[in-house]
Amino acid sequence: MARIVMKFGGTSVADLDRIRNVATRVQREVAAGHEVAVVVSAMAGTTNQLVAWCQGLSPMFDAREYDTVVATGEQVTAGLLAIALQNLGLEARSWMGWQIAVDTDGQHGKARINDIEGEELITRMQAGQIPVVAGFQGIGPDNRITTLGRGGSDTSAVALAAALKADRCDIYTDVDGVYTTDPRIVAKARKLDKITYEEMLELASVGAKVLQTRSVELAMKEKVRVQVLSSFVEAPGTLVVDEDEIVEQEIVAGIAYSRDEAKVTVRRVPDKPGIAAAIFVPLAEAGINVDMIVQNVSADGTTDMTFTVGKTDLVQALASLDGVKNAIGYAEISTDKDVAKISVVGVGMRSHAGVAGTMFKTLAEKGINILVISTSEIKVSVLIAAEYTELAVRALHTAYGLDA
Amino acid sequence: MARIVMKFGGTSVADLDRIRNVATRVQREVAAGHEVAVVVSAMAGTTNQLVAWCQGLSPMFDAREYDTVVATGEQVTAGLLAIALQNLGLEARSWMGWQIAVDTDGQHGKARINDIEGEELITRMQAGQIPVVAGFQGIGPDNRITTLGRGGSDTSAVALAAALKADRCDIYTDVDGVYTTDPRIVAKARKLDKITYEEMLELASVGAKVLQTRSVELAMKEKVRVQVLSSFVEAPGTLVVDEDEIVEQEIVAGIAYSRDEAKVTVRRVPDKPGIAAAIFVPLAEAGINVDMIVQNVSADGTTDMTFTVGKTDLVQALASLDGVKNAIGYAEISTDKDVAKISVVGVGMRSHAGVAGTMFKTLAEKGINILVISTSEIKVSVLIAAEYTELAVRALHTAYGLDA
Repeated sequence: MARIVMKFGGTSVADLDRIRNVATRVQREVAAGHEVAVVVSAMAGTTNQLVAWCQGLSPMFDAREYDTVVATGEQVTAGLLAIALQNLGLEARSWMGWQIAVDTDGQHGKARINDIEGEELITRMQAGQIPVVAGFQGIGPDNRITTLGRGGSDTSAVALAAALKADRCDIYTDVDGVYTTDPRIVAKARKLDKITYEEMLELASVGAKVLQTRSVELAMKEKVRVQVLSSFVEAPGTLVVDEDEIVEQEIVAGIAYSRDEAKVTVRRVPDKPGIAAAIFVPLAEAGINVDMIVQNVSADGTTDMTFTVGKTDLVQALASLDGVKNAIGYAEISTDKDVAKISVVGVGMRSHAGVAGTMFKTLAEKGINILVISTSEIKVSVLIAAEYTELAVRALHTAYGLDA
Repeated sequence: MARIVMKFGGTSVADLDRIRNVATRVQREVAAGHEVAVVVSAMAGTTNQLVAWCQGLSPMFDAREYDTVVATGEQVTAGLLAIALQNLGLEARSWMGWQIAVDTDGQHGKARINDIEGEELITRMQAGQIPVVAGFQGIGPDNRITTLGRGGSDTSAVALAAALKADRCDIYTDVDGVYTTDPRIVAKARKLDKITYEEMLELASVGAKVLQTRSVELAMKEKVRVQVLSSFVEAPGTLVVDEDEIVEQEIVAGIAYSRDEAKVTVRRVPDKPGIAAAIFVPLAEAGINVDMIVQNVSADGTTDMTFTVGKTDLVQALASLDGVKNAIGYAEISTDKDVAKISVVGVGMRSHAGVAGTMFKTLAEKGINILVISTSEIKVSVLIAAEYTELAVRALHTAYGLDA
């Protein structure tokens, strides 16, 4: 017997038939002797409609009212699923964020969970009741409804699993697990049985959008075992767990790619102390996230500084650099939006040398030029011309022995 | 300067354009120097959709979950209208039933309001903020959302007006006031400037469905002045007020009709004490509302008992009578569904004789046979064959000098 939090996304509860299907899956876990709590998203399409209404009335809408409006999506699904579960003879009731309570900070539209009171729900689960919790929502210090931002229901589920001391948090979605890479571009991609939190975070941050990044960070911090699986297929998914749980660790877990970044090069910057701060502090103050950074070897007292920003931030980044041009004294700025970031991720890198070397060699063999390199403890990323994306991902997938 | 509660029904907030229109009407009252609170219904069609979803999952759905689901309709409108008001530069915020709080009893699906805490809203209104309150909803002793039953937003508005000590409660709807009779069948029907609570109650109970009956009862009890007016037409509506406020009281305020009742005659009932109780107590216990009752003069030790019930209750009423047939010992039962109840309503009847006589004489002149008569202090009702409905209403409208 285990205690499980089951979370169902918008496509899994998109209509009454799918809600009935979800109820049947919950029933099966209960029949297997488990204590179950459920977290639900809004029916697919609902949140977009509600957001469109807010925007239609005022482009600069009040985030507090936005929260009040969009939180209704999950409220409806929670009530409906409770009814569907009761119809199967199960004891169930819906819980809104303010009823539990899911205490959040006051950042309406992108609130963070401070605390979830789990005691009453645990008592009820032990007595056989199934709590059906509206995801994505909480209550702020102002006694008003807050929402956690898009995709926040994953975070709700993980936070609830921590508060309920659950053995596992099952995230049901429209994919059946985490793959070694995007199956749409690599036919030989394999579903992973297990992956570590760290690897999942690196994959999520470079475009494998299976789980919301914040939910993985929270799972790692709270040591919540997360399973990603399909609500439409009957099969185990991928377990996201602590490194200790994975006995036979692969060196490389997966290959990710992202075409969301643009490259910026600031040319002939005076090579003196403080120049990096002069460039990057104004960007940070403008709320622009800078990812890869490379500084060239200095020549004749100047250097080139290359970095990447999100494509949607590019115009603002250039404006910010223009504002400090006199202070910095650079010669010119060049940009390139036709780039892709390819990342090789694996905790095994910590103990195995040569992962980066294999990457560079593989890309060289395919004639792919590397524009920027950056590394972390468990990841090597390179920036290449976007047209080589699929070729690079496939070649690396084979090179690291990931092909099915 | 007055304090006004403005209530807008579902057709008045059916889409973003109409919500903007509502915001403009609120702005006008604020510009005139009034303190305003707003109560809103769900966007037209929303509640029906939500109810259909609950029914689709379980015909015997849990009323607590039903309340959680359907209350979202008003939550959405309240948030959206707050955004629309802010967009006009007004200070506004939405309030859910649980935030105010609107304390109700625990009868989910048909809760009654026990108390509304008005102090915080009054303070905010005095500081220039417009509360936008989700109608139809409150909170129960179980800390769960309750709803007041269909049409409950009128009751929410009147109860809020009482709690806020408002000078007036304006109910915006898709008709522009209360008429002397149904304008669809009498072209000469006149809009009334004022009508008493008692008259409004009698008119509402016989089919003039402008205001929910409970809201009028509450307005009478709490002495809340109510105005019924159109959200689409710029004109004063009809004030529903205490009798004292109406200086020149007409003897008859209006003519109402209802085709929702059926006539039942129990023939040759033994004429002895307790026989009425033997018939009507079982009907009451079956939850069947009996309206008009007539007992014929006794002949040869038996009598005929005639009464009316709602057409939708007829089958159940006959089953109830069949169950007590041996105990009562009647000869037979006859029924007639092709009947209409025509009512003449007016507080002036209390001090003016001859109102009933005029009614009977007018109908006789048109050759209309009266099947049943019943009277109250301010109303005379007759049951006639349904085919004469329009003829009777028009003739009476003229006879009492109500024609425009």
